[in-house]
Amino acid sequence: MTSQIAHAIELTVDWGDCDPAGIVFYPRYFAWFDRGAHRLFESVGLDHHAIQTTYDAVGLGLVDAQASFKRPATFGDRIRAEARIERMGKSSLTVEHRLTVGEAVIVVGREVRVWMVRNEAGVTSAPLPDTVRARLEAS
Amino acid sequence: MTSQIAHAIELTVDWGDCDPAGIVFYPRYFAWFDRGAHRLFESVGLDHHAIQTTYDAVGLGLVDAQASFKRPATFGDRIRAEARIERMGKSSLTVEHRLTVGEAVIVVGREVRVWMVRNEAGVTSAPLPDTVRARLEAS
Amino acid sequence: MTSQIAHAIELTVDWGDCDPAGIVFYPRYFAWFDRGAHRLFESVGLDHHAIQTTYDAVGLGLVDAQASFKRPATFGDRIRAEARIERMGKSSLTVEHRLTVGEAVIVVGREVRVWMVRNEAGVTSAPLPDTVRARLEAS
Amino acid sequence: MTSQIAHAIELTVDWGDCDPAGIVFYPRYFAWFDRGAHRLFESVGLDHHAIQTTYDAVGLGLVDAQASFKRPATFGDRIRAEARIERMGKSSLTVEHRLTVGEAVIVVGREVRVWMVRNEAGVTSAPLPDTVRARLEAS
Repeated sequence: MTSQIAHAIELTVDWGDCDPAGIVFYPRYFAWFDRGAHRLFESVGLDHHAIQTTYDAVGLGLVDAQASFKRPATFGDRIRAEARIERMGKSSLTVEHRLTVGEAVIVVGREVRVWMVRNEAGVTSAPLPDTVRARLEAS
Repeated sequence: MTSQIAHAIELTVDWGDCDPAGIVFYPRYFAWFDRGAHRLFESVGLDHHAIQTTYDAVGLGLVDAQASFKRPATFGDRIRAEARIERMGKSSLTVEHRLTVGEAVIVVGREVRVWMVRNEAGVTSAPLPDTVRARLEAS
Repeated sequence: MTSQIAHAIELTVDWGDCDPAGIVFYPRYFAWFDRGAHRLFESVGLDHHAIQTTYDAVGLGLVDAQASFKRPATFGDRIRAEARIERMGKSSLTVEHRLTVGEAVIVVGREVRVWMVRNEAGVTSAPLPDTVRARLEAS
Repeated sequence: MTSQIAHAIELTVDWGDCDPAGIVFYPRYFAWFDRGAHRLFESVGLDHHAIQTTYDAVGLGLVDAQASFKRPATFGDRIRAEARIERMGKSSLTVEHRLTVGEAVIVVGREVRVWMVRNEAGVTSAPLPDTVRARLEAS
């Protein structure tokens, strides 16, 4: 059995991240999901450049995203955003995101991403290469 | 049996909505979901001002959002975004969003929103008032 | 003497465009400047695709932007954004932006943009082609 | 003679900060100016909460912003953003922003901000209180 990788980032809520109710405007959380996913992949050497050059792939394209908003966050809050590979399929993987302020859980969500390559017709999904899979499973 | 309300908006993808892959950066779709939901509520007289003054409520707060990305959209694409009340519960409702470019479906998703009011402890959910429910069910 | 081109767009301020003070978060105005400039160029056939294919250029790259904020705009405000070529130099041009809500001037600003082409060293400025200049001066 | 305060932050360019040309979409720089200005004020105890409670003011409202774009920044670039009080007037101050990647200057700009208070007519500018001025001049 393998354990899958996780990575955490920290960020501070900006004035401009918040709406007239004084709380984070929700699309911003998905921008942080995207940041967290990129940093998670980078943490095991799968940065965008490596994906394009080493693997001749387009990237880990998003096919689904979801978030549950548990508590609001406001200007100045220090958010810890953990990203974790939750599941790996043949061509896709699920990244779970969990955002906290201190002990309080703010947002929990997930992204489903697919390994994308170029073919004659444009861009299509393809099986995750074994070496990519190995990096994502590194204990 | 009642039919529930729907409303469509149109928008054009801006240069700044797109990422280095030349396609819409996905959090932007959620910003358009939010716009679509506000316009849907406005279309039946439930604009933000009415919600605050007529009903002394805080608004229809978001508790969950999800999107499936079917095809990419790019700079200059003309998107039609339909929002529709899919389900109404006691305190919550689900808005379904469907974005198309011409005949092609780009993104399908949903938001779950809850009727929020102020109480002594801050903000809490409350049953949808009957007159609000009636507006949202107007055929 | 030539008159230079102008173009106006309309937009409605979204909830998510506004900050906790309830007014538009100022970087959004620059996103609207960028939209207005693109639409101005498109209105005379200089869309991004034409610039890249007909002229083999990179685009009209931004080198300077400025805005004066006269009055705040808030959620739901209907903004008219006029863009106008204010000045043309050898390689650069200035786009003046003027945003109004009804009769009230909200924001006035400008962008300086430069005609950019590729060379062996990367990207560099170049004189505006005569046919581009002619389009921008069309009375 | 007094020296005026300065403060630096660091940030990494996200995928979603960049446009189809692969470089930072310019309104993002202004969002970083805004972040830098808030952090500069916070660094001398003038956080948003203090401004509202200690001084019963609305904040340091923006009246003008300008930026010169010297070189593009791209995904993954580590930006150092320095903010510095450049000038103080009776009611206003100018914050100079200077963004660098390594030794390269990317963007230089400034914001003019005004001390805003509430009066019976709404919000208006007012002279910077002496204690605020003293904090901003602290050597």
